[in-house]
Amino acid sequence: MPGYSIGIDFGSLSARAVVMDLDSGEIVSSAVSEYEHGILTDRLPNGVLLAVDWAVQIPQDYLDSLNASVREAVSSAGISPEQVAGIGLDVTASTMLPVDSQGNPLCEDPRFSQDPNSYIKVWKHHAAQKYADMIEEAARKDGSELLDPFGGHISGEHFLPKAMQIAMESPELYNASDRILEVGDWLVRLLCGTESRGYCGAAFKTYYSEETGDVPASFFESISPELSGLSDKYPKNIAFPGDCAGRLSKEGAELLGLIPGIPVAAAGVDAHTTVYGCGVSKPRQFLMIIGTSTCEMLLSDTLSCIDGISGVVYDSIFKDMYTYECGQSGIGDMFAWFAENQVPPEYHREAEEKGLAIQQLLTQKASALRPGENGLVALDWWNGVRSTLMDFSLSGVIAGLTTETSPEEIYRALLESTAFGCRKIIDTLEDSGVRIDTLIATGGIPHKNPLMMQIYADVMGRDVLVVDRDQTGSVGSAIMGTAAAGEGFSSLAELTEKYAMPFSTVYRPDPSSSAVYERLYRAYCDMYSFFGEKDSLLHRLKDIRKEARGN
Amino acid sequence: MPGYSIGIDFGSLSARAVVMDLDSGEIVSSAVSEYEHGILTDRLPNGVLLAVDWAVQIPQDYLDSLNASVREAVSSAGISPEQVAGIGLDVTASTMLPVDSQGNPLCEDPRFSQDPNSYIKVWKHHAAQKYADMIEEAARKDGSELLDPFGGHISGEHFLPKAMQIAMESPELYNASDRILEVGDWLVRLLCGTESRGYCGAAFKTYYSEETGDVPASFFESISPELSGLSDKYPKNIAFPGDCAGRLSKEGAELLGLIPGIPVAAAGVDAHTTVYGCGVSKPRQFLMIIGTSTCEMLLSDTLSCIDGISGVVYDSIFKDMYTYECGQSGIGDMFAWFAENQVPPEYHREAEEKGLAIQQLLTQKASALRPGENGLVALDWWNGVRSTLMDFSLSGVIAGLTTETSPEEIYRALLESTAFGCRKIIDTLEDSGVRIDTLIATGGIPHKNPLMMQIYADVMGRDVLVVDRDQTGSVGSAIMGTAAAGEGFSSLAELTEKYAMPFSTVYRPDPSSSAVYERLYRAYCDMYSFFGEKDSLLHRLKDIRKEARGN
Repeated sequence: MPGYSIGIDFGSLSARAVVMDLDSGEIVSSAVSEYEHGILTDRLPNGVLLAVDWAVQIPQDYLDSLNASVREAVSSAGISPEQVAGIGLDVTASTMLPVDSQGNPLCEDPRFSQDPNSYIKVWKHHAAQKYADMIEEAARKDGSELLDPFGGHISGEHFLPKAMQIAMESPELYNASDRILEVGDWLVRLLCGTESRGYCGAAFKTYYSEETGDVPASFFESISPELSGLSDKYPKNIAFPGDCAGRLSKEGAELLGLIPGIPVAAAGVDAHTTVYGCGVSKPRQFLMIIGTSTCEMLLSDTLSCIDGISGVVYDSIFKDMYTYECGQSGIGDMFAWFAENQVPPEYHREAEEKGLAIQQLLTQKASALRPGENGLVALDWWNGVRSTLMDFSLSGVIAGLTTETSPEEIYRALLESTAFGCRKIIDTLEDSGVRIDTLIATGGIPHKNPLMMQIYADVMGRDVLVVDRDQTGSVGSAIMGTAAAGEGFSSLAELTEKYAMPFSTVYRPDPSSSAVYERLYRAYCDMYSFFGEKDSLLHRLKDIRKEARGN
Repeated sequence: MPGYSIGIDFGSLSARAVVMDLDSGEIVSSAVSEYEHGILTDRLPNGVLLAVDWAVQIPQDYLDSLNASVREAVSSAGISPEQVAGIGLDVTASTMLPVDSQGNPLCEDPRFSQDPNSYIKVWKHHAAQKYADMIEEAARKDGSELLDPFGGHISGEHFLPKAMQIAMESPELYNASDRILEVGDWLVRLLCGTESRGYCGAAFKTYYSEETGDVPASFFESISPELSGLSDKYPKNIAFPGDCAGRLSKEGAELLGLIPGIPVAAAGVDAHTTVYGCGVSKPRQFLMIIGTSTCEMLLSDTLSCIDGISGVVYDSIFKDMYTYECGQSGIGDMFAWFAENQVPPEYHREAEEKGLAIQQLLTQKASALRPGENGLVALDWWNGVRSTLMDFSLSGVIAGLTTETSPEEIYRALLESTAFGCRKIIDTLEDSGVRIDTLIATGGIPHKNPLMMQIYADVMGRDVLVVDRDQTGSVGSAIMGTAAAGEGFSSLAELTEKYAMPFSTVYRPDPSSSAVYERLYRAYCDMYSFFGEKDSLLHRLKDIRKEARGN
């Protein structure tokens, strides 16, 4: 009797597989496998230099991690392949690659292995911004409403600018490509042998609309004749999350050590899939998935096209509901950068003596500071800005430094800056009439850093509930797998509620801290306005840097 | 036959004595003695807590270092006390203390030893800003021209606000004080037993004018009755640099291990005295004394009262010449802060392996970067701003940070920021019609950091000459001692030329680097305007910080 589903969550650096008991919702096993090459920003494995803003990955790493994580999870669950009812998977969105007619990655073709455009461009690849600008310009010229649901801007992180980059920088590669795919759709195709395109990624990253379909070929041709055929490069068979995209093929079953015929759900987008795993299913719930970066998902019954909010799509997570997607590009990344680059030896020695990780020590020291005591305000733009400026040429700023400033004071300012960034998103949504009732946090950081969660509660002036479950992404995928084995998309809200866990960890705002943060947030907003403007000096700094580096 | 003079330069952290051969100008010996307690910013030695912005010192430390450095220098020169023709000394200006009628520091009186106001307030004490603001307000109300030669502002670092702080915060101490003195004048009094007030400090820091004398008592009384008697607290006997202020007394001779009767020059101000030691004696020579902070001295035959230029005084260094004094508060301090607080262990390990000081390693790594490659611009305001904003509530800013930014990139940005700060001063002077022909650098940093000097040449777009002599402050004091033994103030220009050394180290601007820096300097100026404005958010950050710390 099949009583389990498997969910696999492909993050930025690793894949995590879980086996879920369909009766109890219990996660009976889980396994993680890191991508061998991680994210490459400097050189390809063959030594080819990458330009500024590039971020690529190796397709085989995904297959290796899929294989390893699923086999380990199934084996340690002690279940047999016959007991698997369904499989779901999710990947970071706009993580994409060109493949040949067999679905083979073109970076594995010796003709193209020297060309960075043939590799997986990961979500945080920021070198396609100029193609995003071309889409924007064309849409404006056109009087098109294309941009409206996407904050008035097309992010350079999105699928289409990255696909355009292939077409316009590597025409031979482009012509050799049969398909340009989201990695999630590519993996589902490898598992099932049939082609589909996950609706969630399609709607948010290629601007597919249930009413009007895909962006028409003529739109791309109006930008450049080189883009001819672009819209034929991605599959037209749209599949909703939780719908069965196909059944495990013989080859797919061999890869996973399972048996053919198991239903495989349409590929999900990581942050969206996490919503299922967090038990979030009601309008006005605002979910912050805080890790390397933060993705904020708001369920809503209200439609509002808001400048700077990366997207709003109907039917994308749950049927008959809107999802707003917002994001902050630098969170864990930025803290890790600080811990690696800006902390002196005596702190590392102290951490070692106390048996703490360096960020635990910094958090401990930062916890002893009162709000405002560091005298600092930072703009959390180390990786550019997703919401609400949608500008990846921006960069981080710290103000208020003195010769008395300590490392923990700066670390705390960085934690605070991400809270201010989140507050800006919440204010922007609410100022546009989109209501938020509940703030819910999940991801790698909320459990590890209570100080940060308290700062969030204080800065927002609201309770912050923390999801008491790890691996919410892969649990969400397992729920999609469960849906695929049954009624599909329409059953996801019900399944999400069935498998939800209570929020037992709650951070409540301290009124006196909130009052201080209100003043600091004004300072943040002043800097946001100054440095965030269209002709920000930060753009000039980036241009100068690129010229100095010769690219 | 007396053929030597002794010069003692009291810096922020140590005293340095030299013995100079009057024939050749050769420095035959030198000795340094560090102040036991350095600068106290946290607590007094007896445990009393200091508030934010306080910076005090211990009078006995000065005497101990005077004693130790002179004895060691004389002893290693192998000269006899009879061979000493004259003595000169200089101290950082606005480094001051209250004393009783015997000249004893009141912090040594058990009644006052718990009161931070009884200690030496060192130049960088920034807790007297509100008293400076009171002077400004009173001068404006008055329609007085008092502020004109001082950039339109009174710095909180100056002598008078610090003296007012004593009067208004510690009235009992104030009443018990017979005199409130510059440390330089105090030391000369201890050596000679006679009282005098160095003209240079008097003119620049207490606004004494050759034409109108001291700020009148009524001015202070108009601010507050508590300030009654303030102008009687400092000596009225003004002495020009190089003039003989008195002769070494029996007690003074015992302190130094010399013989009574040796002429002692009026106390000099460190940066001004350095001008003699650098062989700088002509109008339009701009001397940058770069160390913990930078003091910029411009000799000129043109008078212009310029907003933001801390002072212009006639007859202060050389007879019949103007001296413009400008300053940048955070230089070596800021670099040291960075090296101590913001550099990760592997850099320290590498430095150790290579036998380099950490700043040498950072400089080496930063030298490998091209101008603009760091993508950063910083405001060099870690210690507030002397010229040209005269605002010590401001603080440092770094813009352009990304998760790829390296420590050496930030270090280079800090070096560059100080060059931009200097450029701002030069532009301000020249925009007001005050001409500059030659840039000359001296101090602790120029010899140690050729990268920094090249950056200065590139940012200024002009040659930078470096003085090939160490200890230019104490050499300048020795020249004052020589003058005191002879014709006094009027002979200083001649003596300066006699003992000058050629500038053999010259940094020439590289045109392509200058072009990049021109663009970065525009970004610096944009940030300067935004963060430097009267109601800068940096002021708010400082207020919030003070409140959070409860002071």
